[in-house]
Amino acid sequence: MCSAPVPREPLRRVAVTGGTHGNELSGVYLARHWLRAPGELQRPSFSALPVLANPAAADLCRRYVDQDLNRSFTNTFLSSRATPDELYEMTRARELNQLLGPKASSQAFDFLLDLHNTTANVGTCLIAKEACNTFTMHLFRHLQLQIPELSYNVFLYWRNVGETFSLDSVTKNSMTLEMGPQPQGVLRADLFSRMRALVGAALDFIELFNQGTAFPAFEMEVYRNLGGVDFPRTEDGHLAGMVHPQLQDRDFQPLRPGAPIFQMFTGEDVLYEGDSTVYPLFINEAAYYEKHVAFLKSEKLTVSVPSLPPLVL
Amino acid sequence: MCSAPVPREPLRRVAVTGGTHGNELSGVYLARHWLRAPGELQRPSFSALPVLANPAAADLCRRYVDQDLNRSFTNTFLSSRATPDELYEMTRARELNQLLGPKASSQAFDFLLDLHNTTANVGTCLIAKEACNTFTMHLFRHLQLQIPELSYNVFLYWRNVGETFSLDSVTKNSMTLEMGPQPQGVLRADLFSRMRALVGAALDFIELFNQGTAFPAFEMEVYRNLGGVDFPRTEDGHLAGMVHPQLQDRDFQPLRPGAPIFQMFTGEDVLYEGDSTVYPLFINEAAYYEKHVAFLKSEKLTVSVPSLPPLVL
Repeated sequence: MCSAPVPREPLRRVAVTGGTHGNELSGVYLARHWLRAPGELQRPSFSALPVLANPAAADLCRRYVDQDLNRSFTNTFLSSRATPDELYEMTRARELNQLLGPKASSQAFDFLLDLHNTTANVGTCLIAKEACNTFTMHLFRHLQLQIPELSYNVFLYWRNVGETFSLDSVTKNSMTLEMGPQPQGVLRADLFSRMRALVGAALDFIELFNQGTAFPAFEMEVYRNLGGVDFPRTEDGHLAGMVHPQLQDRDFQPLRPGAPIFQMFTGEDVLYEGDSTVYPLFINEAAYYEKHVAFLKSEKLTVSVPSLPPLVL
Repeated sequence: MCSAPVPREPLRRVAVTGGTHGNELSGVYLARHWLRAPGELQRPSFSALPVLANPAAADLCRRYVDQDLNRSFTNTFLSSRATPDELYEMTRARELNQLLGPKASSQAFDFLLDLHNTTANVGTCLIAKEACNTFTMHLFRHLQLQIPELSYNVFLYWRNVGETFSLDSVTKNSMTLEMGPQPQGVLRADLFSRMRALVGAALDFIELFNQGTAFPAFEMEVYRNLGGVDFPRTEDGHLAGMVHPQLQDRDFQPLRPGAPIFQMFTGEDVLYEGDSTVYPLFINEAAYYEKHVAFLKSEKLTVSVPSLPPLVL
């Protein structure tokens, strides 16, 4: 059963979050700019709320202070009692849950657009939980049609294990925008402008929907998460090799059994031993070294998205 | 007067340092690899010592723990008394000064090769203090001739203000190798292999010198440091704009008066107001945001380097 039903009312409570990871600077600086000059986020039927999600991490220009905020929105964390010495991101997750949720409640915000960067060559990566998030899939389709010059990849991250943990799980509907490659702690003008244009087009889509526009069914190519592959490591946990030059920067390109994936420091190649072609992404993302992920594998699918019925205004 | 006289004896005490900045992973992982397998650093007349310069920062994958190690080698810091609660890098700078120096003493190591990465598009950047570092300039020339397929830029950083502060000032002669672009916290196989080959060729040059080889005079194009330019900032110190797309990635390309250098978040361009052409480098280097440097300016010169006389063996 899909967790994100199609909206039956106009979306009035919309948030745009940047700096969920404090060293992903496109979102950090868009959020800071919009907090000073919010006019760009206004539409006739709503005004999107800009939020700097992890301000303490952004001030330090680090991904997080104590733990990854974007893994902190489990019910376990959110329902735990505050303690004086708790991790910063636990406090901050509870604050954001109060502001934008509560998670899975009727009071939660209607839509969240969470802005991220990666060091991987993913281009413009539109991330949803599942293909059955019909509203979000229509939003992705709208972006593809409105700004066709970008090379989009739609990624579905949910693997049906455990409970949801990311900021985008707090609101009724959501999308995550990943743009790369951009180093941590660096703001590139080209990515900043592209992300700004995409947020504008996303808000335009919500406005169209709020005004009663219907959107027809379509088919879309997507990549579905199959889990991560770790680096080769030494017995002390350090790398023993690195992403192979023939895999580096080839996010969303087919990886066939027998192709090289790692180059050991001693010189030899490690080959991909799976039994079918996969599509790697987040290849060599800096933040995933500590998560023991050199890249994610995905499968490529075509999904049918039903029409989005017009609101009865 | 030049601080680095031409060696009159074979160079026996040679060190290769990586991880002076703990999130510049080419040097971190080369040092870790060579500490396990040092054979690659051996030559007939010497064995270079691999050193992981800032192991605590490397373990955290941060540039530094408390302060920038590569700004900690002033006489003031090195001669201060150790205290129990002092900054980590002050302790570590003293340890490295004991291991590789003491700075400006006859017991100091003969040569240091310090390995760095940058998020800027500097290619293979060979850094010396001044053009009068004759031995180092000959080493650069050797690298250019031995591995001609790399696009080298020779940068002279010293501006004759204050005292020297970097790790490479501790030994009698030295060079710093900067390779980019590479994000902080990411290890790219292409840069790793190139850095490894350059270190090998540098050790080969020292071996040739130790064996009594003479090297003729030559002329070389170099870039000399003219100081930094900060980002436009808001009153609270955050960025108000970013490196202009027409400047981004154009390290060592001419920047003419009137050309755009920044793009403000409000849309307008900031133009370069200098009165002569300069050559920017370290454009949009992540670690320099906190140092208030969006890029360094340099001037392009041709310097004459005298012959390097053979050792009398």
